Amino acid sequence: MLNRRSFLKNSSLFAATSFLLPGTAMSEQSKQVPWMYTAGKKDTPYGMPSLFEDHVKRSLSDPFPGSPFSISQTPIQYQRGSITPNGLHFGVHHNGIADIDPARHELIIHGLVEKPLRFSIESLLRYPMVSRVHFLECGANTAANAIVPNEAAPLSCQDLYGQLSGAEWTGVPLKLLLEETGLRHGAKWVIAEGADSGNHARSIPLSKILDDAIVALYQNGERLRPAQGYPIRLFLPGWEGNTSVKWLHRLEVVDAPIFTKDESGLYTEPLREGGIEYFSFQMDVKSVITQPSAGQILSGKGFCEISGLAWSGFGKVHKVEVSVDGGRRWTEAKLQGPVQSKSLTRFSLPWEWSGKETTLLSRATDEFGRTQPTRNEWKKRYADFSIGHYNAVQAWRIASSGEVHNDYV
Amino acid sequence: MLNRRSFLKNSSLFAATSFLLPGTAMSEQSKQVPWMYTAGKKDTPYGMPSLFEDHVKRSLSDPFPGSPFSISQTPIQYQRGSITPNGLHFGVHHNGIADIDPARHELIIHGLVEKPLRFSIESLLRYPMVSRVHFLECGANTAANAIVPNEAAPLSCQDLYGQLSGAEWTGVPLKLLLEETGLRHGAKWVIAEGADSGNHARSIPLSKILDDAIVALYQNGERLRPAQGYPIRLFLPGWEGNTSVKWLHRLEVVDAPIFTKDESGLYTEPLREGGIEYFSFQMDVKSVITQPSAGQILSGKGFCEISGLAWSGFGKVHKVEVSVDGGRRWTEAKLQGPVQSKSLTRFSLPWEWSGKETTLLSRATDEFGRTQPTRNEWKKRYADFSIGHYNAVQAWRIASSGEVHNDYV
Repeated sequence: MLNRRSFLKNSSLFAATSFLLPGTAMSEQSKQVPWMYTAGKKDTPYGMPSLFEDHVKRSLSDPFPGSPFSISQTPIQYQRGSITPNGLHFGVHHNGIADIDPARHELIIHGLVEKPLRFSIESLLRYPMVSRVHFLECGANTAANAIVPNEAAPLSCQDLYGQLSGAEWTGVPLKLLLEETGLRHGAKWVIAEGADSGNHARSIPLSKILDDAIVALYQNGERLRPAQGYPIRLFLPGWEGNTSVKWLHRLEVVDAPIFTKDESGLYTEPLREGGIEYFSFQMDVKSVITQPSAGQILSGKGFCEISGLAWSGFGKVHKVEVSVDGGRRWTEAKLQGPVQSKSLTRFSLPWEWSGKETTLLSRATDEFGRTQPTRNEWKKRYADFSIGHYNAVQAWRIASSGEVHNDYV
Repeated sequence: MLNRRSFLKNSSLFAATSFLLPGTAMSEQSKQVPWMYTAGKKDTPYGMPSLFEDHVKRSLSDPFPGSPFSISQTPIQYQRGSITPNGLHFGVHHNGIADIDPARHELIIHGLVEKPLRFSIESLLRYPMVSRVHFLECGANTAANAIVPNEAAPLSCQDLYGQLSGAEWTGVPLKLLLEETGLRHGAKWVIAEGADSGNHARSIPLSKILDDAIVALYQNGERLRPAQGYPIRLFLPGWEGNTSVKWLHRLEVVDAPIFTKDESGLYTEPLREGGIEYFSFQMDVKSVITQPSAGQILSGKGFCEISGLAWSGFGKVHKVEVSVDGGRRWTEAKLQGPVQSKSLTRFSLPWEWSGKETTLLSRATDEFGRTQPTRNEWKKRYADFSIGHYNAVQAWRIASSGEVHNDYV
């Protein structure tokens, strides 16, 4: 602690400030940049990224032309840490994005309950809430690697893994609302239905609802975006994205699943030995190196940290092993803590690129010992045209030019 | 696991899907809303909040009219969880917001180093990075409560506490860069200077730089916004916001602080017993109830969860006590985990409002036993016109009308 007197007396310190004046210690380059000599812009009520980051955006695709079905994919190759900004969260929209007036929306809980109830959004905002950081992944994320021949398309990391995002989700534990309605004998499943015109609906086991399901109202500190279900969505940690029903409008407690179109047609997995896997809710353990990754070009040999994401719908990521020589040797990567359950976990490994062609791989293992299969192991279980729940080890092949390409092992 | 055969045979399950058709189980209200019958909008490459949340925005103020100095404050009363979306992060801009081309920006480290170095942004992106969730708070946050008479202005929670935000910050530990430059005998402080035309600069003890300082490149998963220092800022966890120098351009290692204008004029605290406190870096333990809070109106008596934020620049929040009767009795609130060091920590307490006038208070204590003073205790230390580092217990007075007002204890 100093007082103003001692400061003014100390002339040698005062003189030292002079080198902060522009031009005395700046490089020639610095002198040419306008932002050091001109006052900057004013702020805005809601900010946006730099114009120099305009390439960091979701890719939008329209797999059924003419229909309102669309997919927007997160540029995870440009993401660091474990949070996806809300403006870049992925979305699979079966019938476009409903734009709902919260004053005209309510949540209805009925069926095998003691007392059916309606909840306005205003009333839900007064309930106790919890916040948890979780990933959300479409059941069909990385589908292309399951079915598209390796040489067919130069797919990027965003093309392959962009139906994956991470956020802090805040909402009301659904258990609390069911304590208010009560449950009647035979209650075993809950049908969750959205208010979008696609009538998206899923049958959810009651055990999951009573475990960690929330009625989510906030994402990364602000109210959900319309594309994420504003004003409310169901959020089921670790389960395939479509079960976290957006624009949640109705929960009917029932005794058995009802096989909605969304769980009899979409979101089922044909198996190699015949039959179909229904209600394959949990997303398995999975990982991907995001830097460097397919679609990028390494700017030259030398040091480049390998960085990526790992996650498991069953719980916490326990370890991630990385190979920089196509799978001959594996090294355990460093995990960025705190490692949270059913959450994107950032891993990293120091790496010196020699400038020669090589292949990078990552393999995650979760706290229950579940680990990623190779593609061949995965294909043994699923039919040739099966696209859901692909979680095989990803290979990125690095050419001597620095270009990174999708590959199989 | 079921196969398609058993599904088709089970006609009773199939029949049950019929109630999902519009109109059979919908309320009259539901039938009138357009979004259940019309396909929604297409998605965009970078999303924005719902138009119904247009009131959730930063307040912009211009305390020195005619100058480019401006402040934008976070609407923390609408925030849940502990992350502030990047578009709503607060900012204090001494000379506007610099809009920097990353290809024309570099970080220079010189002074008492073995080998002065320049780092391009492209090279920094190849360095090892860490991610940590931290709060950032302006040294003058809540200044109004230090100096403005209680009755003078009906200040809201955003007015009083909006120079506070929380984010996941990702960047290169500065220690790594100094390992490359090396340090010479006598190195004790580092002058950090921004590339904005305000020449904002601060003297930082080397011990902090080597402890947990990072050169931040990412905030909540995407590159920093221009208002937060794009392409790089210094980030000093737990320290007053202005020391986390934005648009970081130059670090000079020196033997003593140089008393820049930003630390001899601004960001010093006049003390009651005379003298000025310089280099008051760490933000002390503090808390605020964000729901309900001044500027809001409770919609009626009954249950309303009390929810708020607590933080300490020294480490982790240990406990938060809440009083719902003006300080007669105190109850320990629940903390939302994982509680992280120098990070916004959400606390909550179930509460049933009787509809009568009362006063809510919160008091945080950190892991080192530091706790919040009353306003009178705080004023004993600081001069009447001192505005920095105000961390006294906040009181919100609730009128029988439900209106919530700022108050002192």
